[in-house]
Amino acid sequence: MISVDEARGRILAGLTPTAAEIVPLAAAWGRVGAAPVRARLTQPPQDVSAMDGYALKAADGSLGAVLDVVGSAPAGHPWEGALTAGQALRLFTGSFVPAGADSILLQEDATRRGERVTVNEAVAAGRHIRRAGQDFARGDVLVPAGKRLTARDIGLIAAGNHPWVSVHRAPRVAILATGDEIALPGEPIPPGGIVSSNSHALAALVRAGGGEAIVLPIAADDVASIAAAADGARSCDILVTTGGASVGEHDLIQEALGGRGLVVDFWKIAMRPGKPLIHGRLGAVPLLGLPGNPVSSLITGILFLLPALAVLSGLPAAPPPVSFARLGADLAANDQRADHLRARASMSDDGTPVVTAFGRQDSAMLRMLAESDALILRPPHAPAAPAGTMVPIVRLDTLGL
Amino acid sequence: MISVDEARGRILAGLTPTAAEIVPLAAAWGRVGAAPVRARLTQPPQDVSAMDGYALKAADGSLGAVLDVVGSAPAGHPWEGALTAGQALRLFTGSFVPAGADSILLQEDATRRGERVTVNEAVAAGRHIRRAGQDFARGDVLVPAGKRLTARDIGLIAAGNHPWVSVHRAPRVAILATGDEIALPGEPIPPGGIVSSNSHALAALVRAGGGEAIVLPIAADDVASIAAAADGARSCDILVTTGGASVGEHDLIQEALGGRGLVVDFWKIAMRPGKPLIHGRLGAVPLLGLPGNPVSSLITGILFLLPALAVLSGLPAAPPPVSFARLGADLAANDQRADHLRARASMSDDGTPVVTAFGRQDSAMLRMLAESDALILRPPHAPAAPAGTMVPIVRLDTLGL
Repeated sequence: MISVDEARGRILAGLTPTAAEIVPLAAAWGRVGAAPVRARLTQPPQDVSAMDGYALKAADGSLGAVLDVVGSAPAGHPWEGALTAGQALRLFTGSFVPAGADSILLQEDATRRGERVTVNEAVAAGRHIRRAGQDFARGDVLVPAGKRLTARDIGLIAAGNHPWVSVHRAPRVAILATGDEIALPGEPIPPGGIVSSNSHALAALVRAGGGEAIVLPIAADDVASIAAAADGARSCDILVTTGGASVGEHDLIQEALGGRGLVVDFWKIAMRPGKPLIHGRLGAVPLLGLPGNPVSSLITGILFLLPALAVLSGLPAAPPPVSFARLGADLAANDQRADHLRARASMSDDGTPVVTAFGRQDSAMLRMLAESDALILRPPHAPAAPAGTMVPIVRLDTLGL
Repeated sequence: MISVDEARGRILAGLTPTAAEIVPLAAAWGRVGAAPVRARLTQPPQDVSAMDGYALKAADGSLGAVLDVVGSAPAGHPWEGALTAGQALRLFTGSFVPAGADSILLQEDATRRGERVTVNEAVAAGRHIRRAGQDFARGDVLVPAGKRLTARDIGLIAAGNHPWVSVHRAPRVAILATGDEIALPGEPIPPGGIVSSNSHALAALVRAGGGEAIVLPIAADDVASIAAAADGARSCDILVTTGGASVGEHDLIQEALGGRGLVVDFWKIAMRPGKPLIHGRLGAVPLLGLPGNPVSSLITGILFLLPALAVLSGLPAAPPPVSFARLGADLAANDQRADHLRARASMSDDGTPVVTAFGRQDSAMLRMLAESDALILRPPHAPAAPAGTMVPIVRLDTLGL
């Protein structure tokens, strides 16, 4: 059995980002940029006023001075002339500062009477002027490649005058659930059967990770059925199976896909829940075989599939986001398998998150997993940890997982 | 001027959640449930084995005992008989435990020869059996109403046998940018003009918040144009404007919409950036008038629009998610306006996040906002804070903002 980190490293090493496609700016949120986005213009394009007021020469802006107002230049309506001594131009936040001016008299420091304005507070040269290019200059990289685009990035790309964005295609993830005993929700349940939840949970996880899920029909527990279903994954970026991965008599994934050219890299990880996990390649398509148990399936999905989606999307290879929290209750020492304890999180008075593991960690309890806020990461052979110890966690709630 | 908290309270108090709609389970991720989801079955439906092995009577499971294997019951293929003394049934993880059996002999503790099996490790009554209803019982609430559905919730709803889910309709947010000087990306830019970024950034923020953005055509800086554009918001759940909200001569929102029945609740908040912010109601449609400055527009969007989206979506009224971090550098005392400092975040050796504000906080610097990881929240009159102080922050990166 290999470690969680080694398993993730080997899974991610076998993946390459999807190719680029062009999407309209309005569809680019949450996608990963495939090329650096460079500014197509300079912002601001010229010196602009940061406030409402009057443009003037600093030499004319001493206390009590009276100036001729020669015009008005709202934002978007620049004044084309050049100010001369004794002149002022009315302007507003964002207005171009006219030639000949180097200072701004604030509206609240001015008294306007007809076409003349009086200075009630001496101006400082250059103050309240935003310089051309203060935000960015033409050619600057606004957003680097390989970043998931936020709302702020979308605003910045718009400001840089891009109606289209080059992004990585959303990874296509084929999901194959196997088992004679499982039925889709709302369909007749066979005797002794249960309702399939893995495909739906994993499809939602794929969506949370920015991918597109293709849910294949459920395969029966026989070699032909699994092999035929897996053919549906040919055009996908990764095939994820659930169930059929352990060593029992009814674990058929390896046998069924062996006939389709499956090359297995490893199939056991020193972790709990989720020991049986196949990694390999089915022709050109990477294969990740997750356990059939719903809790194990979701947790291994978070630990391995989510990072795989990131790499396929063009993001750097990395574990799921880890943060730290204080233990709300003692933990016993761990054995040789990395553990992932389902836990509630709260906030302490000093602002540090606090996590408390559920007392029972049975991998068949899906409801408890759904009610968890975080997974506490317990490395192999971790010693007993008293309440108050800082421990690494993966937050589940904030990621939509 | 009112405080940020009072402003948010007044904005949220004027909102009601959207009505419910039915969506297929596969489209329910990220939506907010409109009714409690109750289990339609009991899980597991009967006592099941937690391991691969043999079912037997505890009295027959002493070390060295030899039992008759009367059959095999893979998951999904229950055995209909009842075990009698001296009998064992082959079963697997998830198999129903047959009548007459109360114990599981693990596969690794058994030696099988033909139709007989030898006990190599005495069994404990009830061990490795998952009881009927251990996960949930028919009628249990699996997911309460008013929760944004995670991948785990989707799995649990599937397991509870629901092909459809009742969720709140995604809030429709009309976005109206005003200004003679702004052009859409890729379109001709008027002299003295700039490219519109607010609508696009806010539309992405609406998407990040689970809403549907309707971006109205840009309105020119005149009363008729703004009033006509705002008519496009009639079927929406909220109208968001950007620009035109301050007190300059070219601030026309109040004048333009006054003729359409605008009732203003307040229009100034003691905060930076973003002081000019209108809240009111245009007929039946709540109105949120954000500043025209791109940085102010996005930050007020995060502070007010995002919580508004949450309430419209059926979630509880709350500020954006606040966490805590240690200051990486000193901060000066704050004045009477709440401040929202753009900051970089990193992780300290002890696992506590560290935030360091950018030295320049000019509200015209959109690129710096895009490069920020967090906003540091500085209350009015906050005293100077040395490096190392724990301060409240809003993480931007993890929310897609």
